[in-house]
Amino acid sequence: MLPAMQTLVDSVWVLLSAFLVFFMHAGFALVESGFCRRKNVVVVLLKNVSVVAIASLLYYVLGFGLMFGGGSPWAGLEGFAPAADASVAGAPEGLPLFVFLFFQLVFAATAATIVSGAVAERAALWPFLAFTALASAVVYPLVGHQIWGGGWLATSTGFHDFAGSTAVHAVGGAMAVAGVMVVGPRHGRYGPKGRPRPMPAHSFPLAALGVLILWLGWFGFNGGSTLSAAPEAVGPVILVTNLAAAAGFLGGLAHTRLRTGALDLSMALNGALAGLVAITAGADVIGPLESIVVGALGAVLVVEAVLFLDRVRLDDPVGAIPVHLVGGLFGTVAVGLFANAEGARGLLHGGGLGLLGTQVLGAGGCAAFAFVAGWFAWRGLKATVGVRVPLDHELEGLDRAECGVDAYDESVAPGRGAVRMMDDGPALDRPAMEG
Amino acid sequence: MLPAMQTLVDSVWVLLSAFLVFFMHAGFALVESGFCRRKNVVVVLLKNVSVVAIASLLYYVLGFGLMFGGGSPWAGLEGFAPAADASVAGAPEGLPLFVFLFFQLVFAATAATIVSGAVAERAALWPFLAFTALASAVVYPLVGHQIWGGGWLATSTGFHDFAGSTAVHAVGGAMAVAGVMVVGPRHGRYGPKGRPRPMPAHSFPLAALGVLILWLGWFGFNGGSTLSAAPEAVGPVILVTNLAAAAGFLGGLAHTRLRTGALDLSMALNGALAGLVAITAGADVIGPLESIVVGALGAVLVVEAVLFLDRVRLDDPVGAIPVHLVGGLFGTVAVGLFANAEGARGLLHGGGLGLLGTQVLGAGGCAAFAFVAGWFAWRGLKATVGVRVPLDHELEGLDRAECGVDAYDESVAPGRGAVRMMDDGPALDRPAMEG
Amino acid sequence: MLPAMQTLVDSVWVLLSAFLVFFMHAGFALVESGFCRRKNVVVVLLKNVSVVAIASLLYYVLGFGLMFGGGSPWAGLEGFAPAADASVAGAPEGLPLFVFLFFQLVFAATAATIVSGAVAERAALWPFLAFTALASAVVYPLVGHQIWGGGWLATSTGFHDFAGSTAVHAVGGAMAVAGVMVVGPRHGRYGPKGRPRPMPAHSFPLAALGVLILWLGWFGFNGGSTLSAAPEAVGPVILVTNLAAAAGFLGGLAHTRLRTGALDLSMALNGALAGLVAITAGADVIGPLESIVVGALGAVLVVEAVLFLDRVRLDDPVGAIPVHLVGGLFGTVAVGLFANAEGARGLLHGGGLGLLGTQVLGAGGCAAFAFVAGWFAWRGLKATVGVRVPLDHELEGLDRAECGVDAYDESVAPGRGAVRMMDDGPALDRPAMEG
Repeated sequence: MLPAMQTLVDSVWVLLSAFLVFFMHAGFALVESGFCRRKNVVVVLLKNVSVVAIASLLYYVLGFGLMFGGGSPWAGLEGFAPAADASVAGAPEGLPLFVFLFFQLVFAATAATIVSGAVAERAALWPFLAFTALASAVVYPLVGHQIWGGGWLATSTGFHDFAGSTAVHAVGGAMAVAGVMVVGPRHGRYGPKGRPRPMPAHSFPLAALGVLILWLGWFGFNGGSTLSAAPEAVGPVILVTNLAAAAGFLGGLAHTRLRTGALDLSMALNGALAGLVAITAGADVIGPLESIVVGALGAVLVVEAVLFLDRVRLDDPVGAIPVHLVGGLFGTVAVGLFANAEGARGLLHGGGLGLLGTQVLGAGGCAAFAFVAGWFAWRGLKATVGVRVPLDHELEGLDRAECGVDAYDESVAPGRGAVRMMDDGPALDRPAMEG
Repeated sequence: MLPAMQTLVDSVWVLLSAFLVFFMHAGFALVESGFCRRKNVVVVLLKNVSVVAIASLLYYVLGFGLMFGGGSPWAGLEGFAPAADASVAGAPEGLPLFVFLFFQLVFAATAATIVSGAVAERAALWPFLAFTALASAVVYPLVGHQIWGGGWLATSTGFHDFAGSTAVHAVGGAMAVAGVMVVGPRHGRYGPKGRPRPMPAHSFPLAALGVLILWLGWFGFNGGSTLSAAPEAVGPVILVTNLAAAAGFLGGLAHTRLRTGALDLSMALNGALAGLVAITAGADVIGPLESIVVGALGAVLVVEAVLFLDRVRLDDPVGAIPVHLVGGLFGTVAVGLFANAEGARGLLHGGGLGLLGTQVLGAGGCAAFAFVAGWFAWRGLKATVGVRVPLDHELEGLDRAECGVDAYDESVAPGRGAVRMMDDGPALDRPAMEG
Repeated sequence: MLPAMQTLVDSVWVLLSAFLVFFMHAGFALVESGFCRRKNVVVVLLKNVSVVAIASLLYYVLGFGLMFGGGSPWAGLEGFAPAADASVAGAPEGLPLFVFLFFQLVFAATAATIVSGAVAERAALWPFLAFTALASAVVYPLVGHQIWGGGWLATSTGFHDFAGSTAVHAVGGAMAVAGVMVVGPRHGRYGPKGRPRPMPAHSFPLAALGVLILWLGWFGFNGGSTLSAAPEAVGPVILVTNLAAAAGFLGGLAHTRLRTGALDLSMALNGALAGLVAITAGADVIGPLESIVVGALGAVLVVEAVLFLDRVRLDDPVGAIPVHLVGGLFGTVAVGLFANAEGARGLLHGGGLGLLGTQVLGAGGCAAFAFVAGWFAWRGLKATVGVRVPLDHELEGLDRAECGVDAYDESVAPGRGAVRMMDDGPALDRPAMEG
């Protein structure tokens, strides 16, 4: 009876964690919406919910099998569209398959979501959705197979990536770099002398709410990655996750102040996200005081990365590359620097410099693979359907040009809204269906 | 000891689910606010929170007893305002009464909330709140008694409505039809030739966030309806709920594109809700691949229903009738079409065509009862206190006319807001108390 | 084995509760943002997230030890920056230290957050953050030591404050009174004859969403305070929390209507919060019907308190003092008036008039200590760094004056936003970094 009871409690914990990770997609949608300009918000929202929907279907049908199925060190060859009682090689004992699968499914959408923010405001919708399908159903699962699914890296090295600083964040960030390089910067983003023109966030309340939702969701992202409710493991994971986020927020606020003189909420918010991304790889083996250092350093690196991207003209409207790629690589390496006995899971295979080297090579290798895969995907899309909206659509704003609506309808006078809408093509019995 | 431990874990699961269902009311409030015009947003918010408050009090005092009390196949006659240790005939063994009651209580508010969106922007506040009291304390509990409370339908037929496609959604949707018929369309909604004039959504970020919150909340709505944390039952319920929502979003997006040429976020969002409503009746007996079909078909039906309501001039600002009535009826029937062994709970009594007939008749009967009850309620209110705001209030907007405030105060210059406010009646030491 | 299993379930429950309490900080941020004017929203958001970050770091390092460490009846002298396996005198048996610590940590930030709303729109950022550090790391922990940490009040009297009507809310509200007295009212808040000029809420959707999030979070705030998942204890706590909130919302709506004629959403929302604050002290010992009375009375008192603050010219933009101080004191006293056998935990030491007297003196004493501590802190800050922004910053709005950004960028035309931004100092590759 007792193992059954353990399974019961573990399932509740993992499902609670999965719900929090699912909610992160609302956070991603709000952060990207808030940081973008109001003329592109409807398309941003459409993209973000579409990513959840596409990843949900394709990861169940294809991605989960590639990631956790057995049969090869390079990709799973079983467990596609599995039944509830299917046996899948990489799935843990003592957790019902669909509980484990659902937790993994909500993870899978995040890698593609990271790319969404980086190419926002000028990438075309359909190619982005095609990329999303590839990223969530193939690229992410192949890397995940190496790290968590019983692949070569997992079985042959001591590489440690507890909850995905590399598997999710560096992979998403590396695909974002490829996307930004292929899609190019927003029109008018860089002035004649290459001096960047800031494009202001259209809503700080949306961005801040989004970051607080992501912060909350991370308790599930990291906490659920124990795949068990064992409290001596879970408690420290949750605490260090929170301390790293707090240190990241204050670190981003302080470093931006020193570096630019600005009192910058958006950088502080990205600092909090950087702290969360950075602690993700080692939340089980890094102690509370060390997690504060990891979070603060992660935020400082992100501020520097934002300034650097500026110089190399990689136009990333929401700071996705600094937060997820830089924060993810740093966090993975930080396991080799800061892992200690206060961590929940105790020692790693190897450890010391051996561990540090493994972390550097493992993170670098996974990010490189994701970048190359993303590069060929974006180049292929560019060569076929194209990856960018027409310039006049970009100037008018994607919402009106592609959806025929505004994100916010300001009309108060009765009829005024309706009258304006009369000109917008077939009218249907719905608000905002005039597109 | 072990049964006690089981009770402990089941209670945590059911309470977690209840919290998610409670959060759905924030989702309903945001969806209705976002899809309505900015001049009516304060009253929309006031209505939505009032529904939660009224239903919370009246369902505890009256509705729970009517729904789960024993004494008659037509209505419970005990368990009103129960104590924590009361014994109520329809309450399950092995779950503390107040844990079960709280989960049922957060459900009860949803049926009335569905009506709120359908009659938004012109129904008067007090009659709507009076209707809310009746719907949540009497109409919904009487139907619920038949389906879950030990009433005739539950005990004498094989009717299967796992989490309320009929009990909650079709019932709410049918009452909404009655409300819309009695209250009538918004002024200016239909042009001289009866051609509908779209009234644009005032905020897509609010609407999209609301739908994501509802999607999240549905994991509790369906997951908690197992009333147990048994993971072999819960895991599949959660997975199919998510797959149906994903398929609904993409189905709504695609079918609207084919049908109208529009790239329509609002229809895609309602498609996701339609998928969720549709899978609710059979989430325990429908497998993953079938759930994708159910979600997509639900979304297609909702798009068609929106176009149909348009032709018959039923003015439903948020699409509540298509989503909840059409989606709910379809979902209940879908149990007869798609239930299979992959479902979590295994076989139903009857099954096959017998089951299909039972589902059709059960769903139809409950919706008919709710429509008739709603019709007499709205007609009675119209004949006495009236159900509609004065035309000038509707034109000015309900917020200024009824509450004396704007949902958004744009004044930035100091004093400007204050000066405008000086004219608005008794000033109190609060923002926005000038109403 | 069974105690281990109990620990497992209790940890899941306490962590779930902690996540809900963490989410309350999003609610606080939205309520304060929504009720303030749009020119100050960025700074409001910056303050609210900073409070979470500062309290997270300092409570772990210092506050937790002061609150729960042993060594003296007046303050803990151990358990600073504890390790996961540390033994701390005031921490409960059978709950892992970091699970307990994280739940307490998310509580600690709330007291300071209460002050944030009261001094909003004119208090300077840095002194507020310094106050936050003191409040969350020292003042709140010292009171908490008395009430929950094994201090004199906890061990020598029958004082009962289940989840913090006094420990969190009255303490935060009392520090808010000190802050408002020292900082002074917003410029232009009171007219020549002292007649208050209302300063309208800039966004009701943000405020209403914030209150619904706080209502949800309170299920963790009160529910988790059992520190155990024991369902016979948890069920009633959750139910009465919800009933008090519902009664508070309707009570606030009705009493304002009677008192001022206004149909006032903001007062109804604060009524719901008042009901929640009021039930917090006795959620374990007050029955459902009594909780409705407590919630409604709390809301009536809050409406009256708002009108009273108006007369004495204490300018509290969000109503923090009425809700948290008045609601908290009333709720603590209400334990002596309404505690009964339906309460989950059964009898208290003392009881009857003895209990009532204890509650009055205990709540009054703690609030007085917090007021005095807050007064000296704010006076000290005023005498050194100053506590108020320059008048021209207050008039222009804190967002532009201090952060160089607007909370909402309305520019739609391409370039327009960018052009405006060109003048705003060093441009960086981020939205809204022009500050």
